[in-house]
Amino acid sequence: MSVAPSTIRPAPVKAAAYGGYHTRHVPQPDLEITSTNPGTPMGEYMRLFWQPVCLSIELGDLPKAIRIMGEDLVAFRDKSGNIGVMHRHCAHRGASLEYGIIDKSGIRCCYHGWHYACDGTLIDAPCEPDATRLKQTVCQGAYPAFERDGLVFAYMGPPEKKPPFPEFDTYKLPRGNKLVPFSNIYPCNWLQVFENIMDHMHTAVLHNKMVVEGVDDGTAAGLSLEGFGDMPIMTWEPTRDGNGMVFIAGRRLPNDKVWVRITEMIFPNFLQIGSLLPTAARERHSTAGCTRWNVPIDDTNMIIFGYRHFNKEVDPDGLGSEADCGVDKIDFLEGQVGDRSYEEGQRAPGDWEAIVSQRPIAVHALENPGHSDIGVYLCRKLLREIVRGKTKPDGLYASLTAEGKTLPIYAQDTVLSARRLPPAEDRKQILELNKKVLEVMRSADKLDADERDSHIRRKLDEIDGSERVGA
Amino acid sequence: MSVAPSTIRPAPVKAAAYGGYHTRHVPQPDLEITSTNPGTPMGEYMRLFWQPVCLSIELGDLPKAIRIMGEDLVAFRDKSGNIGVMHRHCAHRGASLEYGIIDKSGIRCCYHGWHYACDGTLIDAPCEPDATRLKQTVCQGAYPAFERDGLVFAYMGPPEKKPPFPEFDTYKLPRGNKLVPFSNIYPCNWLQVFENIMDHMHTAVLHNKMVVEGVDDGTAAGLSLEGFGDMPIMTWEPTRDGNGMVFIAGRRLPNDKVWVRITEMIFPNFLQIGSLLPTAARERHSTAGCTRWNVPIDDTNMIIFGYRHFNKEVDPDGLGSEADCGVDKIDFLEGQVGDRSYEEGQRAPGDWEAIVSQRPIAVHALENPGHSDIGVYLCRKLLREIVRGKTKPDGLYASLTAEGKTLPIYAQDTVLSARRLPPAEDRKQILELNKKVLEVMRSADKLDADERDSHIRRKLDEIDGSERVGA
Amino acid sequence: MSVAPSTIRPAPVKAAAYGGYHTRHVPQPDLEITSTNPGTPMGEYMRLFWQPVCLSIELGDLPKAIRIMGEDLVAFRDKSGNIGVMHRHCAHRGASLEYGIIDKSGIRCCYHGWHYACDGTLIDAPCEPDATRLKQTVCQGAYPAFERDGLVFAYMGPPEKKPPFPEFDTYKLPRGNKLVPFSNIYPCNWLQVFENIMDHMHTAVLHNKMVVEGVDDGTAAGLSLEGFGDMPIMTWEPTRDGNGMVFIAGRRLPNDKVWVRITEMIFPNFLQIGSLLPTAARERHSTAGCTRWNVPIDDTNMIIFGYRHFNKEVDPDGLGSEADCGVDKIDFLEGQVGDRSYEEGQRAPGDWEAIVSQRPIAVHALENPGHSDIGVYLCRKLLREIVRGKTKPDGLYASLTAEGKTLPIYAQDTVLSARRLPPAEDRKQILELNKKVLEVMRSADKLDADERDSHIRRKLDEIDGSERVGA
Repeated sequence: MSVAPSTIRPAPVKAAAYGGYHTRHVPQPDLEITSTNPGTPMGEYMRLFWQPVCLSIELGDLPKAIRIMGEDLVAFRDKSGNIGVMHRHCAHRGASLEYGIIDKSGIRCCYHGWHYACDGTLIDAPCEPDATRLKQTVCQGAYPAFERDGLVFAYMGPPEKKPPFPEFDTYKLPRGNKLVPFSNIYPCNWLQVFENIMDHMHTAVLHNKMVVEGVDDGTAAGLSLEGFGDMPIMTWEPTRDGNGMVFIAGRRLPNDKVWVRITEMIFPNFLQIGSLLPTAARERHSTAGCTRWNVPIDDTNMIIFGYRHFNKEVDPDGLGSEADCGVDKIDFLEGQVGDRSYEEGQRAPGDWEAIVSQRPIAVHALENPGHSDIGVYLCRKLLREIVRGKTKPDGLYASLTAEGKTLPIYAQDTVLSARRLPPAEDRKQILELNKKVLEVMRSADKLDADERDSHIRRKLDEIDGSERVGA
Repeated sequence: MSVAPSTIRPAPVKAAAYGGYHTRHVPQPDLEITSTNPGTPMGEYMRLFWQPVCLSIELGDLPKAIRIMGEDLVAFRDKSGNIGVMHRHCAHRGASLEYGIIDKSGIRCCYHGWHYACDGTLIDAPCEPDATRLKQTVCQGAYPAFERDGLVFAYMGPPEKKPPFPEFDTYKLPRGNKLVPFSNIYPCNWLQVFENIMDHMHTAVLHNKMVVEGVDDGTAAGLSLEGFGDMPIMTWEPTRDGNGMVFIAGRRLPNDKVWVRITEMIFPNFLQIGSLLPTAARERHSTAGCTRWNVPIDDTNMIIFGYRHFNKEVDPDGLGSEADCGVDKIDFLEGQVGDRSYEEGQRAPGDWEAIVSQRPIAVHALENPGHSDIGVYLCRKLLREIVRGKTKPDGLYASLTAEGKTLPIYAQDTVLSARRLPPAEDRKQILELNKKVLEVMRSADKLDADERDSHIRRKLDEIDGSERVGA
Repeated sequence: MSVAPSTIRPAPVKAAAYGGYHTRHVPQPDLEITSTNPGTPMGEYMRLFWQPVCLSIELGDLPKAIRIMGEDLVAFRDKSGNIGVMHRHCAHRGASLEYGIIDKSGIRCCYHGWHYACDGTLIDAPCEPDATRLKQTVCQGAYPAFERDGLVFAYMGPPEKKPPFPEFDTYKLPRGNKLVPFSNIYPCNWLQVFENIMDHMHTAVLHNKMVVEGVDDGTAAGLSLEGFGDMPIMTWEPTRDGNGMVFIAGRRLPNDKVWVRITEMIFPNFLQIGSLLPTAARERHSTAGCTRWNVPIDDTNMIIFGYRHFNKEVDPDGLGSEADCGVDKIDFLEGQVGDRSYEEGQRAPGDWEAIVSQRPIAVHALENPGHSDIGVYLCRKLLREIVRGKTKPDGLYASLTAEGKTLPIYAQDTVLSARRLPPAEDRKQILELNKKVLEVMRSADKLDADERDSHIRRKLDEIDGSERVGA
């Protein structure tokens, strides 16, 4: 795949041993796809989607000051249970509503008692002898917001473009699935955290006992993804007419089996991945173990909000831990959260260290991409084409959400039989399996939601049968 | 009153429910009247007046580094008792005089021992074989300074414009009055702290049990001004030919009484208010309970310096506490000082939270002013007219200070008889009382200082008698 | 000596008592000779020399993040003992190599395991199916580096201009000399720390019991240089064709003796000084007690790296302490390191307070230089002439380092006999002795290294004999 022009260095420098003097210049970051402040191309695009802004458990009897895409906001749940997400500073004289008093309906500014409903309308202004004019002309800047399974979502885009909230099959399937909310703060730009997901090959390095000699086995194991240690055979593909993409990772297992894993991004910042447990490589088919939104706080800070999925299909052995999911904590892998000492991070680095240390905003112009980066570069290219208006919105996504139907996803794990061949041929065979599994997932798009799962399982069984010929 | 042009938003946005997207832009602050750095219009105006720069008790055997209106300074008391207020960095090679050694006369820089008198003249330069030329050409940048009742004052303006220090009647009256110095630091622009005083109606909201449910009664009481809970009937007036202003707040009391309170600002940053105790609404007449200067540290930090007045007239029941007045502490109201936790501030907000949270410099262009803001907007308008050269200096102030006479003030509290009328008429009656009381105060301007108090009391008695007709 | 044009104030202000209003403007610092970021004149000049970047003891089993002249780097010792000094961010995707895993040879980035040799060449890229192209085109930006007597040196300039490492006579002489490494961090620009050395007269002030009354004798003594309390008679001279300079300080001792001390700078940032012990004024002749490089971290932070010399000649009574030399600590004088409280610094200021408090970058345009500053201004003038290309490189330095020979130094302490004369004549006599001693030191330049010491001692004896006539 080609690299977008703006990420190519203007005057390439020939690398040489001890050549630091010639490569020391640090160019500006690529703001077109990293900056999400109001009015930026990426910021306006991201505002067209519902975004999580905090966890439900963060809203008690006090308002919570939050910062999303460079906007200072306050979130609260009023005493009637309505959610307010508003500009932080009172429309009257600017006092912060983080010091406001939550009311039966809405919130009162502490300074003069101006009382706003959750939609921002002025209900009362006790210092005003005649508040009629004010009630007609003043509104606190507010955003539509609601709670869903422990996350608080807001829509910060143009009111006339507010979309329905997209429901994915995976939220309710398999039957009995439980969504457990969590967050995860990274003090760096959102994109380097998001694109890391398409950089699947790092799981075989960073998440495979990449520790300093002397680190104890328990710590090393906590940082490692069991079963992800072998280098996968990778395929990357745009999906949803360029509004999403997947990686497909095929891994050779013992006993003439191949494990095909698909992880999916839907732009701008949504993704679903399968299980991160060793059992991911055991079952015929399972889907999302985790749903995440990569939400910018501002250009140099971000917060992941997500749902861990708890069900028997993604976690047949019950290895996950609901209690370890919450505010800035998750139940898989050490090194995801900035809660360790600098030295601990050095001795046993995790995603947090590898990603945050790419600079406050990673400088793409300094990179030297290889095969493992194809997904990252495809992700950036697709985002750039969207913000430049070259990509049409996803029709299926639009029509299903408009109809209130749930959306298919492509993230999944499948284990298939496939006789081990000599390396070059085996690689080719696995690449073909990668494609076939994605085709199966896509072939369910047009079906009704309740038919998709059985259709997919049937199709995967067919592939499994056909491949088994040589076994 | 009209709002100054520069505070009107260029492209007004129609407020609407859930309209945050259209009102998210944060314009620049109004630097013409908020910035006081050297060379700014407001900064040059403010430098024409004596300003307090620290408390006497802060000057011991070590120099104190201070920052006033963006200038880094050092203050000290030499061993002869002279006060020095100087540029912080030594005129020789820039070492800070906060590490200087205080001498019998002046201060010595620690680096090369250059020795400056309090006026900045070079007394000695021990490393210089012939210091004659240096003594003639080098001066440490110094400002005239002196102590008065526990505050250290300096004059930072052009030497040729140095005014006499203005003495107010209230400093010595009533007989036996005691001035107790204090300071109070706010990490925000000076103007939002200063103008808050003309925003008197907030006392009926913020200072009236505006706390989150569950806060204990003692905390709530500590944050509340007893007697200020009813919404006052307000009048705002320029005074001193536009060089000052007052609010007059009339409040209906039980038993056909009305309490008329006047608080006065003298520009640029001086103010006097009456008592903040419940007894303010009990006596016929009392004057200043507090004198304050709102001094910029820099554009985003400020410090109030002031005197609490301790005397039997403003505090007949002896409720105040001298021991609670000092460096960044005062004896009235919780929530004035930044010494509480974030959560305490959220549960029981005070002036500190309401004012600091207006942003480092409040953005006037985002405000939606109402009736309660008339005083704030008048204050800004008058300041703007002064820095634009449209206002003549106050002749009375100039002539009295030149003659060494004390200055009259208008701040006071009075209780008058006035039969309660139906609401609309009562409001009219109170507005008339507001005006009459201000007239009484102004009518004493031309009198000799020792005649003013009895004149005012006689005039107030007359009003009280005439109003009592209907009772 | 003349002051360089750029340091003269454009519109000189006549200093006057209480004239702070007219001298409050703070101009920009003189970046031509203070800034060392990549591409600046001074930065490029400084990069032509080997610079210490950390201490050997700072390199253990973890990489060390360092910042030198505004470049973010990482230093490490691989398991074969090779030293790596590299750009901090991995050439692949920017993850920091401070989280890299040190290998038998070089270092591995934790993210994708890219493995670099100490010269920056790519040895392995485990995620890349075919890393051949990458190995040919990608290099981590690296700098040549090595260890020497406990310091790690790197060369950060253009590869084609890499010089030999200069060895000075003093490193090995006197026989048995031991070099003990140390560092010393100053949060300010490098130049104000460096030039302080040519400002020798401050030793008679700052380092001579310049403490607030009441400080105990032990603390005062720890801050004072015994024997440096009398004001020296100073001479300053360029050396090495303008690529270095010395001060020569002559001090009258009791018993018709004169102590002549020479301290030498070699530009851009190297210096050697004699002993700081009272015994410096006792022996006929001794040389370096301390070698230092003043290395910029960035424009507002710097770190001294140096060697304390331990031998019987500079410290005949064994007063120094090796154990007190190390990471940000040295064994002479309190007040060199930022480890004291603010109040301790105020009560008993040292170099750290006097220098750091000159502002993050001292503003030369505000200075009023006197006699004591001649050395400082000469230092700046010579540096400016070098970065403007007006000074030819030092031929002797170049030829001796090219031949692998050790370099002579001029730093030394000598005690000579000289009958005390009336003050004016004595001053003249001492100035002549100053010149003579420097001439002696220079006369050894052309000799072989092993002949220099005896030549110098013989010549000094001759001077001593001739001066003794009058005794």
